[in-house]
Amino acid sequence: MAFTFQINNDVVWDYDKNLLDRAEANIPRLIETEIHPIGIVERISEKQRVNDFELIKSDKNSLSLSDYSLGRGESLILDLGDHYVGQFSIDIASVGSPMDAPLYLRLKFAEVPSELYADSADYDGWLSRSWIQEEYIHLDVLPAKLQLPRRYSCRYVELTVIDTSPKWKASFSNPLFIAKSSVSVDQLPKVTIEDDELKAIYNVSVKTLLDCMQTVFEDGPKRDRRLWLGDLRLQALANYYTFNDLFLVKRCLYLFAGMHTTEGKIPANVFTEPELTPDDTFLFDYSLFFVTSLYDYIEHTNDYDALENLYPIAKRAVDLATKQVDNEGRLVLTEEWPVFVDWANDFEKSTAGQAIMIYTLKRYLKLAEAYNEPEKAVYQQLLDKMIEFSKQSLFDKKQRQFIVEETNEVNVASQVWMVLAEVFDTKKNQKIMQETVKQHFPIKGIATPYMYHHVVEALFIADCSEEAIKLMKDYWGKMIELGADTFWEAFKPEELDFSPYGSPILNSYCHAWSCTPAYLIGKYLLAKE
Amino acid sequence: MAFTFQINNDVVWDYDKNLLDRAEANIPRLIETEIHPIGIVERISEKQRVNDFELIKSDKNSLSLSDYSLGRGESLILDLGDHYVGQFSIDIASVGSPMDAPLYLRLKFAEVPSELYADSADYDGWLSRSWIQEEYIHLDVLPAKLQLPRRYSCRYVELTVIDTSPKWKASFSNPLFIAKSSVSVDQLPKVTIEDDELKAIYNVSVKTLLDCMQTVFEDGPKRDRRLWLGDLRLQALANYYTFNDLFLVKRCLYLFAGMHTTEGKIPANVFTEPELTPDDTFLFDYSLFFVTSLYDYIEHTNDYDALENLYPIAKRAVDLATKQVDNEGRLVLTEEWPVFVDWANDFEKSTAGQAIMIYTLKRYLKLAEAYNEPEKAVYQQLLDKMIEFSKQSLFDKKQRQFIVEETNEVNVASQVWMVLAEVFDTKKNQKIMQETVKQHFPIKGIATPYMYHHVVEALFIADCSEEAIKLMKDYWGKMIELGADTFWEAFKPEELDFSPYGSPILNSYCHAWSCTPAYLIGKYLLAKE
Repeated sequence: MAFTFQINNDVVWDYDKNLLDRAEANIPRLIETEIHPIGIVERISEKQRVNDFELIKSDKNSLSLSDYSLGRGESLILDLGDHYVGQFSIDIASVGSPMDAPLYLRLKFAEVPSELYADSADYDGWLSRSWIQEEYIHLDVLPAKLQLPRRYSCRYVELTVIDTSPKWKASFSNPLFIAKSSVSVDQLPKVTIEDDELKAIYNVSVKTLLDCMQTVFEDGPKRDRRLWLGDLRLQALANYYTFNDLFLVKRCLYLFAGMHTTEGKIPANVFTEPELTPDDTFLFDYSLFFVTSLYDYIEHTNDYDALENLYPIAKRAVDLATKQVDNEGRLVLTEEWPVFVDWANDFEKSTAGQAIMIYTLKRYLKLAEAYNEPEKAVYQQLLDKMIEFSKQSLFDKKQRQFIVEETNEVNVASQVWMVLAEVFDTKKNQKIMQETVKQHFPIKGIATPYMYHHVVEALFIADCSEEAIKLMKDYWGKMIELGADTFWEAFKPEELDFSPYGSPILNSYCHAWSCTPAYLIGKYLLAKE
Repeated sequence: MAFTFQINNDVVWDYDKNLLDRAEANIPRLIETEIHPIGIVERISEKQRVNDFELIKSDKNSLSLSDYSLGRGESLILDLGDHYVGQFSIDIASVGSPMDAPLYLRLKFAEVPSELYADSADYDGWLSRSWIQEEYIHLDVLPAKLQLPRRYSCRYVELTVIDTSPKWKASFSNPLFIAKSSVSVDQLPKVTIEDDELKAIYNVSVKTLLDCMQTVFEDGPKRDRRLWLGDLRLQALANYYTFNDLFLVKRCLYLFAGMHTTEGKIPANVFTEPELTPDDTFLFDYSLFFVTSLYDYIEHTNDYDALENLYPIAKRAVDLATKQVDNEGRLVLTEEWPVFVDWANDFEKSTAGQAIMIYTLKRYLKLAEAYNEPEKAVYQQLLDKMIEFSKQSLFDKKQRQFIVEETNEVNVASQVWMVLAEVFDTKKNQKIMQETVKQHFPIKGIATPYMYHHVVEALFIADCSEEAIKLMKDYWGKMIELGADTFWEAFKPEELDFSPYGSPILNSYCHAWSCTPAYLIGKYLLAKE
C-alpha cells in the first residue's frame, strides 16, 4: 500500500493500553546477518526500459575495493549479491597529499539498477522525495569509519565522491551491510518444488516476505515502512506457510486492536515510531480485514487467549460495517470510507466491496461460534441477505458474470471477490472464472501484485489450477525474468516501465503484498503433493 | 591563505617528538558560548552586487520560531546577530497527520547573505565544493533533536524543508549555536578609540581574530581551517595587542618547529587532525616567517625556554634560505620554492622576496644575539651584502622606487617590503612611500587584506600615518560599510563582487590575515595616545 492518502483531522481515538502493552511485549529481537559485497560495478548501462539495465562489472573486479581511489566526480557500485534490509558501514581513507578539504560523498542505496540511473533531482512526483535512499555526507577528517544510522533496503550501494581536492583521493575498504529481519531462512520448512519456474517464484516470495518482516510486518522496507492491514493479512498467510513467526502476527493484530476510533473504526495502518500512532486513513475493506486476519490467525494457532481479547474489537468493526448495509442486503459505500480493492480507479468497486463483506462475515461467524456469541443469528441473517442480494441483483446469468448494479459494468475484481467469497459453489465459480479468463485475459490495467494475488487465488478456489499457475508464472515469473531479487510493489506486464510515482526511484521493489506466491504455492500446490 | 597548491610527493619529513609533545601540551580548552538567534528572516532579496543583499525580515518576527511550520520547498533563515564559529542544534517536530515519510531537510550555514543566494549546484571552481557549508539530512522519526556533529562558521542558518509529505509539516524550536574559541572578549584590554570608523574597524578585527582562534590559529574557520605560517605571523601580532593568548602562539610555533623536511625546510602549513601532519606545500617567505614569528614571540614574552628549543630550527631555516643568495647578495628564487608575497601573480616578486629575506635576517640576528650564536658575524655579513645589493642594484634613484632587476618593473610590493625591511632610513622611506602613493594609489589588482596590511604598515613605518589611516578606512572600512561582521579573505574595492573561486559560496568571510587592523591600530595609534 501507499498509493492513497486521506487527511482526517477530527478523528477521536481510543487507545487500549492493555492490548497495546501485549503488542509491545511481542516486539521481536531482530536477527542480524553480516553481508559482504560480492562484486564491484563500475557503471550501469541503460537499455531500452526503466527496469532493464546492464551492470558493467569492473575489469579490476578481482582486485580489492581498496585498490580503487576516487577523486572528484568518480564513483563505483557495490553489489551485495541479493536484496537486503539493514545498515551500512565502510572505512574511508585519503590517498595522496594531506587531506586539505573535507570529503563530500554521496551514497545511493538501490533495490534495482534503474534507481541508480535515475537522477533524484529530476523527480517531480507527489510522493515525498524524502524516501529517495540517497545521503550526502561530509567527512572532515580521514581515515574514518562511516557508519550510517539509517536503515536501507537495497542490493546496490553506489559511492560517489562529489569532491576531495586536487591533492588527494578517497579510498574505501571493509564495506559491511548488516541485514536485519525478525526471521531467518533457517526457520523455513523443507519444501520440494519440481517446477523450476515455480521454485524460483517461491524463493523470491520468501525473500520478499523475510525482508518485510521487521518489528512489524512492513509494507515496503524501502518506503512506506508502516504496518498496513490489507498487507498484514497477506503477509500473515504467507508467513503461516513459511517462517511461521506467530509472535509477529499476534503483535500486529494487537496493535490494530489497541488503536481505533471511539466508534470502533480500525485504521488502515498504524505507526510504531516514535510512539504507537494510528494513521488517519480509513478504508472499508482494510477495516474488515482485521476480522479475516484474526480468523486466519485463530484458525492457524487456536490461540483462544487472543480470541478472548480481540473478538470484541472484531465485533465492533463488523457492527460498524453493518450500518452500511441497507434492508435489501446491499452494501452502500460512502466517500468518507471508501473500499480499496485495488489502486486502479477506472473500474467500479461496489460489487467487489459487497463480496469482501460477505467473505468477512463468513469468517466472522466462525469466530462468533468459537466465542459463543449470543447474537450470532443476527449476523447469519445479514450474511444470508447479502448473499441473496448478490445472487439476485448483481449476477447476470446470461453473461455468467457479476455486474455493478447501476452501470452493469463487468470487471475482473467483481468476479474474483465474489468467487473468493464463495457466493456460489465451486462448479458455478469455475464457470465464472472461465468466463473471466475468456473475457479479460491477458489482464490489462492492473498494476498491483495485490490484485493479481486475488485473481490467482480465485482461480484456485474455482478449480482452475492450470490458469492459476499460468498467471503466477506470467506475472511473478516475468518480474524474475526482469531481474527481481524480491517482488515489486507495482508491475504491469503490458507496460514494463510503469511507475505509480513518475520515477522508478520511488518504486518499492520489495513489497509485502507481492510475497503471496509463497502462500498460494504452499496452500494450493504443495499440500496436494 | 589557500589560493595556492603544490603536490610534493617525494618529501622526507623529520618529526621531533619532543617539540611536538610540547605543542600538544598547549592545546587550549575551547570556551563555549550559547548563542540564540536574534531574528527570523523569510527571504533575501538580491541587489546589484554579490556582497550586497537585503534581508527581508518576517512580519511574524515577534512570534516564536515554533509558530512557523514548513512544508515541501519552504524555508526560513535564522539570524544569529553576529558571526560565530561552532556547532548547531535544533528541535524538530511534525505537525498535522502522522508522519508518513521521513523529513528531508537542507541546512545552509552562511557567513554573509550572498552565500544563501548562491546555488551550490552552480559552483564550478577548482577549490573543493566540499567546503560549502550545506547539509542534507533525513530524519525518519520526529520529534527529534538535530545535533549536527560538524563545526560551522556563520551568522545565518537557513532551514529548507525539501520534503515532508502532503499530510504534515515540520516545526522547529530551540535553535542553539554553541560558539567556540580559545579566547573570550573578557580577555581584551580596555581601549579608547575616539574615531568611530577606526573603532568599528578595530572591533571587527578583534572578532575576526577571536573566531579564527581555535585549537590553532586557523586560516579561515569556514574553509581551510589549517595553521598557515604567514597567517600565524599576523595573527600572533594582533593577538599580542588584544587577547594576548601566549599559549596558543607557543603551541603553533612548536608545531612548525616539530615538522620540517630532513634538510630543515619548514612547510607553509600543517594539519592537526587526525594526527599532526605537515603539508607538502613550501613557500620561501612563509618558511622565513617562522624566524620572524619566533622573534616577535620572544620579544613579546622573553620566553627563553622557547628560544632554547626553537632557535636551532630557525637557524636551519635561515641557512637553507641563505643557499639561495648569490655572491653579490642577490636572492635567486626557484620554481620549486616560490615566494608568495601576494595572491596576485601579475607582478614580479623577486625584489619583495629580497626584502623579506633582509627583514628576516635583521630579526634573526637579534635572536642569534640572545642565543649567543657563535657564527653571528657570518649572518651579519650576509645581511650587509643583501642590503648593499638592494641599494645598488634594485633602487632607481631617479624614480625613488625599487625596481625588479631585469625588467625594471616598479610595483607596490617591492617598495612596501623594502620599507618594512628598513633598507633605508625613515626619511628616505617616507619619500619612497609618498612616491608609491602618488604612482599607485588607489591600489588596483590587489585582492588580499594580507598585502593591504603590509602597505599600511609600510606607511606607518615611513611616517605616513595619515595615508596609513586613510587606507585602513578605505579598505577595511569599506568591508564594514558592505555589512562585514568579520573581515574577508579577499576584497577588491575596485571590484566588489570579486571571488578568487568563481562563487561567493566558497569565499571565506572571516579570515586570519584580515584581522591586522587590531595590531596596526594597537601598535601605531593607541600606543601614541
